[in-house]
Amino acid sequence: MEVKKIVLPESELPRQWYNIQADMPTPLEPVLHPGTGEPVGPDDLAPFFPMPLIEQEVSQERFIDIPEEILEKYLIWRPTPLYRAYGLEKHLDTPAKIYFKNEGVSPAGSHKPNTAIAQAYYNKISGTKKITTETGAGQWGSALAFCCSLFGIECKVFMVKISYDQKPYRRIMMETWGATCVPSPSTETESGRKILEKNPDSPGSLGIAISEAAEAAALDEDTKYSLGSVLNHVLLHQTVNGLECQKQMAIAGDYPDMIIGCVGGGSNFAGLCLPFVRDKINGKDIDILGVEPASCPTMTRGPFAYDFGDTVQKLPLAPMYTLGHSFVPAPIHAGGLRYHGMSPIVSQLVLDNLIRAESVQQLETFQAGITFARTEGFISAPETDHAIAMVIREAIKAKEEGKEKVILFNWSGHGLVDMAAYESYLSGQLSDHALPEEEIRRALEDIAPLPKPKQYRPGTIS
Amino acid sequence: MEVKKIVLPESELPRQWYNIQADMPTPLEPVLHPGTGEPVGPDDLAPFFPMPLIEQEVSQERFIDIPEEILEKYLIWRPTPLYRAYGLEKHLDTPAKIYFKNEGVSPAGSHKPNTAIAQAYYNKISGTKKITTETGAGQWGSALAFCCSLFGIECKVFMVKISYDQKPYRRIMMETWGATCVPSPSTETESGRKILEKNPDSPGSLGIAISEAAEAAALDEDTKYSLGSVLNHVLLHQTVNGLECQKQMAIAGDYPDMIIGCVGGGSNFAGLCLPFVRDKINGKDIDILGVEPASCPTMTRGPFAYDFGDTVQKLPLAPMYTLGHSFVPAPIHAGGLRYHGMSPIVSQLVLDNLIRAESVQQLETFQAGITFARTEGFISAPETDHAIAMVIREAIKAKEEGKEKVILFNWSGHGLVDMAAYESYLSGQLSDHALPEEEIRRALEDIAPLPKPKQYRPGTIS
Repeated sequence: MEVKKIVLPESELPRQWYNIQADMPTPLEPVLHPGTGEPVGPDDLAPFFPMPLIEQEVSQERFIDIPEEILEKYLIWRPTPLYRAYGLEKHLDTPAKIYFKNEGVSPAGSHKPNTAIAQAYYNKISGTKKITTETGAGQWGSALAFCCSLFGIECKVFMVKISYDQKPYRRIMMETWGATCVPSPSTETESGRKILEKNPDSPGSLGIAISEAAEAAALDEDTKYSLGSVLNHVLLHQTVNGLECQKQMAIAGDYPDMIIGCVGGGSNFAGLCLPFVRDKINGKDIDILGVEPASCPTMTRGPFAYDFGDTVQKLPLAPMYTLGHSFVPAPIHAGGLRYHGMSPIVSQLVLDNLIRAESVQQLETFQAGITFARTEGFISAPETDHAIAMVIREAIKAKEEGKEKVILFNWSGHGLVDMAAYESYLSGQLSDHALPEEEIRRALEDIAPLPKPKQYRPGTIS
Repeated sequence: MEVKKIVLPESELPRQWYNIQADMPTPLEPVLHPGTGEPVGPDDLAPFFPMPLIEQEVSQERFIDIPEEILEKYLIWRPTPLYRAYGLEKHLDTPAKIYFKNEGVSPAGSHKPNTAIAQAYYNKISGTKKITTETGAGQWGSALAFCCSLFGIECKVFMVKISYDQKPYRRIMMETWGATCVPSPSTETESGRKILEKNPDSPGSLGIAISEAAEAAALDEDTKYSLGSVLNHVLLHQTVNGLECQKQMAIAGDYPDMIIGCVGGGSNFAGLCLPFVRDKINGKDIDILGVEPASCPTMTRGPFAYDFGDTVQKLPLAPMYTLGHSFVPAPIHAGGLRYHGMSPIVSQLVLDNLIRAESVQQLETFQAGITFARTEGFISAPETDHAIAMVIREAIKAKEEGKEKVILFNWSGHGLVDMAAYESYLSGQLSDHALPEEEIRRALEDIAPLPKPKQYRPGTIS
């Protein structure tokens, strides 16, 4: 029998994270203060993050030790299995070899706990009693709730109100892990109350929820704030996955010609690909491809610019691909990919031609998810379906070209709490959205008056 | 670092199932025809099951080879990991060592595919084009849908109407895997139409759904029927889990003093414990404990008797512990444990004092599930919470007695599609149910007029 999945023994769990800042051909531009436009320093971040995370954010060390306490918790679900998708290959009749890393085996069902565990731990040892965060569809909030419960830290999640109402399962998961989940806008913060005064029926937005979570953290010394993607330290923690995968691919006796992942803020994609990007910098020939929704085509249509991380312009200005902080994507089901910006690390690597991006429409992603479920068994998160859609395109291309090609992708999470999205698709109620040309034009105008407009650089995707 | 989970390499996947019929001190009594009261023969079963499964139902071979095609599909999620519950042990401050087998890693999220894969395969090679089945809360229906999709067999699931309406996620899972799911009672069968004529708003029941699924299979030569628990061949397929677990316990360097599983029809419990029951027959000292809901206390309160497998008295009479085929359990959230009878194999082993049973109330099970989620990370199915509740009791007892004891239990599935049940508990809306004394008395009267009343034997639980 052929080997279906490669599972590393626990003794092979990576003991260090990989920090690509040590190897990037172009160093990252500094992040700027939203008020002054000056580079942000540790003191600006201290009200929000514990010092070990602030240090990781700017560290230039190539490898950073993973503390024993984090390794212990990782073992709850790591190392995760690397699968060979024989069923999908056979169905597509492709000469391509398709591998996927199954990050859906974590208790929260996605890659998110890779960083949530680390953030909970560093907060714990820094004396934090409570962590606040925001969540859209609930993947991140539930992952942080799970990890806070393991370290005995209080967790408060501001969940976008419309999702809070429409997606109760993720909220109940958070509560099962002992977190408090409140619909945002809430009456608990100044930001929330202001919104509610103007519009008591506000459905909320990720931007509002970020403001509320950050405000709640800033008010109380023992409370810190946490972000589930975009930031350098988040991507750092996610590399545990790519490092595992390099060992597993070696056991499989293959090396990827192509790596694919879906991208929202960039963390699941980066977690898998960054150790391979290092190989590429060192001369390996790999095509590394981030897949974004056509409704939120940050890297394929946005410029590389300084822009606010949040809609309400309270977060620092980051150098990144962006559609503008006021860009409102269509309400696609892949809520985790509806972010106007992109992690600065992924953005810089795109600019430097080490990573490229493509976009896909919603219907193609769900069709891909159905094909995957019926050939490989697992039901994927709508976000993950974006990666699968691109894998299927590439596998068909390989067949047409008669090329035996090794494709590796990140199966970032399962879709068992997203079944309503599959129902919309299966019942024919779902449609694609027109490319958001006008909305992009409008929103990009909002990033013109920058504190440091000289830093603006147009995108140079080849 | 201590080893958290033991994962067998794929090469260690068991190549045979274990058939306890070869070793039972008291052979099974025959199953009787519901009309004639005579022992059922292969011809009676042929309209419903393919011949290889009928043969397995009565086989006396100790080990039965698992066909290569089934092994291949098992590799999608097997071998499953054996976990050491350090987090729970620490929380309980117990000297007990607690191990659990994680069967929640399958695409359907439970142990059910262990037999669904086998049944789909044997149907496929026997020329079956379509399989019908019934499902209550949807665990079994979704597992069969998943497995039929892998073998390209049509699958039709009659889902109890009230669950169909209240639990859409499981239904959508079935549809995602390509199955058809209809609310039962339906207009598609004689049985369904009869019920609907009398009561157009009937909420349905497992009994009605069984009748519909069996009728739909009997009508069409290419269509067969499938059951997800109770039957001998189902338990046989589930032993792949216990056989794996024996290898894993050996690697851990421990042997269980106690094995715990929740019991509805008996298949997840039997799957883990039967290979250990063999050890017990051969002299090992193990306490093997099935945990049932106090609302449906089949083994702790029912007699061992011949009774119909279904409410509508169409299925054969089986020798088993039963509360009477007309017993209606309270609407607890652990839908998979609401069965009036018990698998004949498990029943006979209880009668022979190789297995024992206890019952727990609903609130205790959810409290156990919450404790487990906050210490071990994973959110359990409400059924599985019954096993966890008993494990916690035993771990506390071990502490009181100062005994280092090895407890092994089957973590039969995750609860991510059952979050509404957790919400009821967390919001304080859930309560325990009075012990169903009167309902048991009433229902037991219904099993008096048996075709072969001489076979009746009162329960002898010690």
